[in-house]
Order: sequence, then C-alpha cells, then structure tokens
Amino acid sequence: MTRVFNFSPGPAALPEEVLRTAAAEMLDWQGSGLSVMEMSHRGKEFMSIAAEAESLLRELLAVPANYRILFMQGGALAENAILPMNLLRGRASADYVDTGEWSKKSLAEARRYGGVNIVASGQDSGYTRIPDRADWRLDPQAAYVHICSNETIGGLQYPEYPDVGDVPLVADVSSDILSRPLDVSRFGALYGGAQKNIGPSGLTLVILREDLLGGALPCTPTAFDYKVVADNGSMYNTPPTYSWYIAGLVFKWLKAQGGVAEMARRNDAKAALLYGTLDASDFWLKPVAREHRSKMNVVFRLQDESLDEAFLAGAKARGLVQLKGHRVVGGMRASIYNAMPIEGVQALVDWMREFERSHG
Amino acid sequence: MTRVFNFSPGPAALPEEVLRTAAAEMLDWQGSGLSVMEMSHRGKEFMSIAAEAESLLRELLAVPANYRILFMQGGALAENAILPMNLLRGRASADYVDTGEWSKKSLAEARRYGGVNIVASGQDSGYTRIPDRADWRLDPQAAYVHICSNETIGGLQYPEYPDVGDVPLVADVSSDILSRPLDVSRFGALYGGAQKNIGPSGLTLVILREDLLGGALPCTPTAFDYKVVADNGSMYNTPPTYSWYIAGLVFKWLKAQGGVAEMARRNDAKAALLYGTLDASDFWLKPVAREHRSKMNVVFRLQDESLDEAFLAGAKARGLVQLKGHRVVGGMRASIYNAMPIEGVQALVDWMREFERSHG
Repeated sequence: MTRVFNFSPGPAALPEEVLRTAAAEMLDWQGSGLSVMEMSHRGKEFMSIAAEAESLLRELLAVPANYRILFMQGGALAENAILPMNLLRGRASADYVDTGEWSKKSLAEARRYGGVNIVASGQDSGYTRIPDRADWRLDPQAAYVHICSNETIGGLQYPEYPDVGDVPLVADVSSDILSRPLDVSRFGALYGGAQKNIGPSGLTLVILREDLLGGALPCTPTAFDYKVVADNGSMYNTPPTYSWYIAGLVFKWLKAQGGVAEMARRNDAKAALLYGTLDASDFWLKPVAREHRSKMNVVFRLQDESLDEAFLAGAKARGLVQLKGHRVVGGMRASIYNAMPIEGVQALVDWMREFERSHG
Repeated sequence: MTRVFNFSPGPAALPEEVLRTAAAEMLDWQGSGLSVMEMSHRGKEFMSIAAEAESLLRELLAVPANYRILFMQGGALAENAILPMNLLRGRASADYVDTGEWSKKSLAEARRYGGVNIVASGQDSGYTRIPDRADWRLDPQAAYVHICSNETIGGLQYPEYPDVGDVPLVADVSSDILSRPLDVSRFGALYGGAQKNIGPSGLTLVILREDLLGGALPCTPTAFDYKVVADNGSMYNTPPTYSWYIAGLVFKWLKAQGGVAEMARRNDAKAALLYGTLDASDFWLKPVAREHRSKMNVVFRLQDESLDEAFLAGAKARGLVQLKGHRVVGGMRASIYNAMPIEGVQALVDWMREFERSHG
C-alpha cells in the first residue's frame, strides 16, 4: 500500500491514524459486536460516540455554553437555504459580503427567502482581495451579516474576522474550521460541510447562539428547523451516524496533536513554505492579494499555461494528486488542510523547484 | 471478535462481507493511495464508484430508462418535505394513505406545502390493518397518491401495491426497498433513507419518473430541487460519498446473492420461521392483521409484559440485540432486513422457545 499526498479541495485527505482506527473498528466497535454503521442512533453505543464527538468539538473551539452544536445533512449548499429560512426571523433582509464563488452561491440562494443586501464585493478586484471592512455598507436592521471565511475556489481567506456591531455575524467556515483558533462568541452562527477539515462528506455542522433558535419560516422542512434539530440533540431525523463517528475520531486526533493552536502553527508553516516557493520566482503567478491569501487553498498558475499538463503529470507520478485548479479559475490549487502533513507540502515544493529548473 | 445478531430497525445490520471489504479498502481503494472518504467527488475514482453503484441499483430493481435515480441527503423525514415541494407541481393537493407513524409524519409535513387529503386511514383498526383499496376515496386531480410501503414502527407492509389509476403513486420504501421485486414503472416516485437495506444513514435514494421533474416550488432549496439534482448527476452539492460507496458494495453483494428475487425468498423464509413461532402460542401477542404483517419488522408482545426485561436481557446474553419495540407501540420488534441471515432468526426463535418453556 502506497498512500499519496492528496491535495483535493474536498472531500479531502484525512489523518492516516483516523483511517487506521476506522478500519480496525469496522466490524466490531469496542467489543460491541457491531460496526458503527450498524448501530441504532438511539442505542447507548452510538449515543456515547455522538456525545464524545460533540464534547471534543466544544473543547477544541471553546464553544460557549449558550451555543448549540447541530450535526446536520446537506452540506454548505443546502445550508445556504436552511440558514436564511431559520435566521431571517421576520427581518426584511440580510447583509452578504461577496468575496467569490461560495459567497455568490450563498447570497443567490438567500434571495429565495428574503431581501439580500450585498454590502461589499470583491468583484472589482477580480475577487483577489477581501473588501476593506471600512467600506462595507452594513444595515443595522439586517437579520445577520454573512461572510465566507475561506473561499475554497478563489483561494482567499479572512486573516481576521470583522466587527459588525450588534447584528449577528454568520460565517461559512466549511473550509477553514478548526484550522486556527476562533472566538465563537463573536458569531451568531458558524456552519460548514465536514469534508475538508472534519470528516466524510454528508455531515454538516452548525454552531449557533441559542437565542437565534425558534424563528424558522413556515416553509422550513421540520428536519431542517434549527430549533427542532437542537431540541432533539440532532436526532429528529436519523443523523449521518458513521460520518459523525469519523468526525469524532478526527477531533480526538486534533486534540492529541495539540488542538487548533498547534494546527494554526503547522498551517502557517505549510503556507509559508508553499507561498515562499511561489514568491521566489515569476515562473509562478499568484493572483490573490498577499494579505488575503488562503492558508487552506493555495491558488497559483504557471506563467506558461502550456506547461500545466506536464506539471500535473509529473506531480501525479510523484504521488502528489488533485492539484488541478477549479474550472472557474483554472491553473493550480493545492489544498493543504489540517490532515496534510508538512512532508506533503515539502514534496510538492521539491517538485515545483525541479519543474522550474527544467522548464524555467 | 464476536459479531452479534443485530435486530436494529435502522441504522441496521450490514452484510459482514461488505464491512470486510470496506475495512480492507479503508486506507487504499484499489491502489489509488486514497480512502474513498478522501476522494474528490468529481475525480475519476469516485465517479467510477458512483456510476457502478447506480448501474447496479438500476439492474437490481430493473429501473426503466425513463426513471432517474438521485443520491440525496436528509433521510425520509426530510423527503417528507422535499417530495411535496417538488411533486405538487401546481396541483391543489395530494392524496395520502395513513397506515401509521411514518404515514402520519409524511402527511403532516406535506401540509406545509399544499392540501393533503387523507384518502384512507388505519386509525379505526388501531393501525393493525392497511385500509382496503376499495374504500380509498381518491381524488383524480391529486398531484400524487402517497403510501408508506412498510411501517417500521407498527410492523405493517403492503403485500402488493395498489392500482391508483393515472395519478402518480409515490411510496416511502425506506424499510423494504430491495427486499422483494417491485415494478418501478407502476410508481411516479420511490424514496427512502438508506439505513435499513442499503447502507449507512445519511444517504437518501429517490427514484422518479423523469416527466415529474422540473416543477419545484420557489421555496425549494436548490440542493433539494429534484431537477437540479438529476441534471447534475446527484453532484450539485457534494454527495455523501462514503455512504454511496458502501451502498454500492451492498448492491454488489445483493447481486452476487441472487438479486431481489433471492432476497424475497430468504425474507419469506425468515418471516415464516419467526411468525410461525409466534403463532404457535398465545404466550406471544401478534397485533398486526395476518395479511398485512411486515416481513421486515416483526412486531410482537409478551402476554405478560412483566417478563419483557427478562426476555430482552436473556436475548442480549445470547448475542441477540436491539429487540425492544418502539416506544410508541412497546413490546418487541425484530427487524430482519436483507442482511439478517436465517441463522440470526433461528437463534432468536430458539431463545423464544426456551424462554417460553421456562416462563410459559
């Protein structure tokens, strides 16, 4: 068995230790005689798995007691609808900051349920910068202010989170949750698909302040009413039990590694190594403004695009896979989430330097 | 490692062979160097897994070419909303047959989106019978007629499917899909959560006639618009990739066993053995009308309820788990889906006879 270095934007690489545990426990979880996949979600075995995962996540992110953690389904794209259904709470509109593909999807979907004010947009910069907070035209009556913490496709990330006053700040954190410390108390809600830093696709996490519960629109499916989900411990409908279990294993791994502070240190080091290599030469084009570069999804292009295929083929031959950029932006993208070790980034950088020497 | 016989109503037992394959492939799927959990859903590896699973399901159920198969999220409870959102198509109402807990949940949820006519109800019989088709008061203008093929909680199952004329017949088949042959062409749509006969929870299957696509209500989240899902090969949002893979392994196992006809033969034999034991003595109460008894969820009670705990404890000691009935009906429930071998039912029957001898 040879494992590759997997730079997929998601579903993405998982810690090998987590996969080994999952394989070992597949037919018999801790002497229960059951696979986790086979457990009733209301049985004591799965209830303990579920509770431990939530407790670990609460500890890792220091989630305050007045915040609820929901384990849901549908991914961030479904949440783009479910969130306004739940959080508009009779307000006329919500504020959205447009920083690229994912923000645009979020705000387009929200328009089905209420007014949407685009309070700032990166469009003028070709989505290479996050608009300055000073220029945001916020509405103090807005139901919430929505941002995308990290744009997976464009490769932009908020270096720090904006102050938006008393209006609840809501963030899609699909692609950078648990990659760095974050002060949950500054948000009304955080949400994200699991398939980048947490676990398998099919699990969606929502962390929200409990005073925001209870205002779902009448058209909200009961299974997606945050209050119903919260009141039922995320078991109103059968939750994605196996994904929840894997998420718990990832949380355990994260804690053993030193938690999110240690992850941030490692992610900083990985990003510094990769961006440093890119910055060392004009052979590589770096579209994103330096201060807004994502530490999760490093987007770059070869100056000579005719070399793209050769670069990707050579990478693959070296066990470096899924480096092709999203079709919307082209070029390359190296997604270096928590589970990507520095050795993977080093191997990529080695190949980049070798490729540049022979083609530069 | 000692595996138990797991009578859970869902998430339920899976074929051990499937679990062994999943464990063996966990760190490296077929030389890819990747776990299936780590694969981009748009990469060629996962695309081949997804296509094979769909193709196997199409073959197993002989799904006609004008039907689409959707791999979705949210379970049957979410579908209770998503289905009327998509299939009301401007009609004033839909017809629902009420045969118990799951039907009631379905029709209550549908009321959010349009009119609901309860065209027949098993309430008068205490939900021990499926109402005679001759007494259903169908509306020829209804958007569809909804039935629950198998009531997991009450233990009722349609022995055959009703003729409802030109109105599309829609069935929640969560708990008996693939347990017996079924003529898909008689339905407008079939849907179900995967966690009984298909795979892990978190995956929902929808099989529907393609002329019913395209009429979603404006409030439908894009990720749950059947046409969007169909047009994007169930990849508009990131699908639950690992559950899809496990479902494919189950479909492969099913085919190797002889397909749904062979499953029906085995399920008939298992049900005959268990109901035969129940019928042999008044020690056991059998609430459901004989002709409507479920071959998937066998519901029974001990005449002397004070023996319940002793019966369950003895069963557990013999490796027979999850036999306690749903809190709504009490008593016992043995769920004997496809993955439950006859040996498990035999072991249960052996214990029942032994228990009756010592307590009867």
